[in-house]
Amino acid sequence: MSVTAAKGFTAAGIAAGIKENGNPDLALVVNNGPRRAAAGVFTSNRVKAAPVLWSEQVLKSGQVSAVVLNSGGANACTGPKGFQDTHATAEKVAEVLGRGAIEVAVCSTGLIGVLLPMDKLLPGVETAAAQLSEHGGEKAAIAIKTTDTVHKTSVVTKDGWTVGGMAKGAGMLAPGLATMLVVLTTDAELDSATLDKALRAATKVTFDRVDSDGCMSTNDTVLLLASGASGVTPEYEEFADAVRQVCDDLGQQLIRDAEGASKDIKVEVINAATEDDAVEVGRSIARNNLLKCAIHGEDPNWGRVLSAIGTTSAAFEPDQLNVAINGVWVCKNGGVGEDREKVDMRYREVHIVADLAAGSQTATIWTNDLTADYVHENSAYSS
Amino acid sequence: MSVTAAKGFTAAGIAAGIKENGNPDLALVVNNGPRRAAAGVFTSNRVKAAPVLWSEQVLKSGQVSAVVLNSGGANACTGPKGFQDTHATAEKVAEVLGRGAIEVAVCSTGLIGVLLPMDKLLPGVETAAAQLSEHGGEKAAIAIKTTDTVHKTSVVTKDGWTVGGMAKGAGMLAPGLATMLVVLTTDAELDSATLDKALRAATKVTFDRVDSDGCMSTNDTVLLLASGASGVTPEYEEFADAVRQVCDDLGQQLIRDAEGASKDIKVEVINAATEDDAVEVGRSIARNNLLKCAIHGEDPNWGRVLSAIGTTSAAFEPDQLNVAINGVWVCKNGGVGEDREKVDMRYREVHIVADLAAGSQTATIWTNDLTADYVHENSAYSS
Repeated sequence: MSVTAAKGFTAAGIAAGIKENGNPDLALVVNNGPRRAAAGVFTSNRVKAAPVLWSEQVLKSGQVSAVVLNSGGANACTGPKGFQDTHATAEKVAEVLGRGAIEVAVCSTGLIGVLLPMDKLLPGVETAAAQLSEHGGEKAAIAIKTTDTVHKTSVVTKDGWTVGGMAKGAGMLAPGLATMLVVLTTDAELDSATLDKALRAATKVTFDRVDSDGCMSTNDTVLLLASGASGVTPEYEEFADAVRQVCDDLGQQLIRDAEGASKDIKVEVINAATEDDAVEVGRSIARNNLLKCAIHGEDPNWGRVLSAIGTTSAAFEPDQLNVAINGVWVCKNGGVGEDREKVDMRYREVHIVADLAAGSQTATIWTNDLTADYVHENSAYSS
Repeated sequence: MSVTAAKGFTAAGIAAGIKENGNPDLALVVNNGPRRAAAGVFTSNRVKAAPVLWSEQVLKSGQVSAVVLNSGGANACTGPKGFQDTHATAEKVAEVLGRGAIEVAVCSTGLIGVLLPMDKLLPGVETAAAQLSEHGGEKAAIAIKTTDTVHKTSVVTKDGWTVGGMAKGAGMLAPGLATMLVVLTTDAELDSATLDKALRAATKVTFDRVDSDGCMSTNDTVLLLASGASGVTPEYEEFADAVRQVCDDLGQQLIRDAEGASKDIKVEVINAATEDDAVEVGRSIARNNLLKCAIHGEDPNWGRVLSAIGTTSAAFEPDQLNVAINGVWVCKNGGVGEDREKVDMRYREVHIVADLAAGSQTATIWTNDLTADYVHENSAYSS
């Protein structure tokens, strides 16, 4: 279902030959209207891939007719030629669909610093366009996978309207988004300003708080397209809630499929003076390699949690910090708490609560453990 | 030699039984004067171990008679009892040596959140004091090891005066220092203000730029003690240079012994607008887990270098960035440069140059690759 669950959308996913192994690598998502309102959120990395630079321009009009996505190459750090390639891809989609190129967003994912094989990609656009279908959402989701072991989709259906989406990403997940490509669609009838507001509110508390390895991609893109095909204009809060649900679900799927991970770690910071403090502390804990190794070893090493908290500028007193791991308060008032032997670490889910005892704000960051498999996968990626 | 290379110092290293495996775990360094000037630099982690809190107070007077160091336990996050234990340790040293406790610095290293076995540590102080010797520097350096595979010492001798030192540390190395304990001694005749100036200038460009895994310890301490026993007062610049040399040498030894590392990576940032920019960019590159995995796999993945640069606030234009790996400019003007096949990655030393093309400032950060061995070592540390 994914991007074709909402009315007014067709999609396709095919193997264009960009990937040498012959796996699907090209996806097309088309908004058939009647409306073509859209919003987008992009990587905050200052080294942006050509498709990000292009799509940022496309989104300025608040109108998107189609999204073309490829795996098998990020088209990042590819200079003027890379940008020309992105432009040519959008032109090709526009030509095939009979739309304007400036309404075609482009997303790419894969290795940085390699030009895309345009002799395969452009014919692939024609093939994909010929296969566009109201049932093509699944195939599109499959075609954008890189090291993902599974494809990721999510749908929320409300009273007469729907929000659905697909995502790819499995590592290099970090704030300001991650190497994730996400396309969300809805048949609700809304303008681009409303979409933008709802999308930013949702990504701030979902994808922005998924931090698998602290590395930020050059290609992150989250797009939300609205066809208006349901004829329904929902209340803003209800719509924003649905978008947040889909983003949250997709974000959780990304974490569960993170490269080499054996544990999914929920870092919940409570009683912070401000939400920013809570996020800063959560991220510091989530990025601590030593802690991530300890969790991998099923070791409730709360000292590494405190050490990570100590590097932040958040409001707290060291002798008032409390830490729970899987429900056991192993650290109380900055020192030894309940017996660490009580902590059951056998399961994939690990829940760390850091109590700053400095206020009433909270935030949750999702991360993974650090494993030998992560090292192996990322040692061999481009060789 | 190490801390006893300079005249006026005695040292000892013994097995007090703090470590369950019976290895040496207690060191004592004594300044026999005639002067007892000292300076210290401590972790900037806000969660500070008891010995750090104590020694910060000791250093306020600018006078240190003795340093007692233990491995086998960090005495961090141990509450009021932990601080009492540190105090009792200083008192014991003072009693045995006939000095004031407020002139005894204390350093601890090991697992966080565990109280020290004082019934073993205090008798150990007596044993160590009985073995104090002008040749005890080596034994002291051995007694402070934790996961270090070798002990680390360095000596610079000038015209009539000497700076020597010992260090421990092998992982959890990061800015604002690392889990490193360092004691430097000199027989130069200098006041504590001069020592402080020279020590801060040296650590800023040496230990502060060693960033093995981005994790900052609760216990980092670097002390510089001056006995004045040579009767020589060197020029400030010459003295500062000698301190920097010893710190640089010890810092390099720490990197070479980092937990699980197979590559030592020198990240040199050139043509930055400011030195702060250069340090920020160097640290971002040095902390990028994906790049560190790539280097482990002998993959000159310059895209990950650019991706890391892109997350900083330093002055640069993405299309003017250049990156060399082991002398080959694999990235030019933000895009593909020389053939990456030319990069020889067979050796332990890896040299990354990031040219920001934005000014004339430079900085070098030292780090390691990320390996499965690092994961294994840090998964099993406390279990």
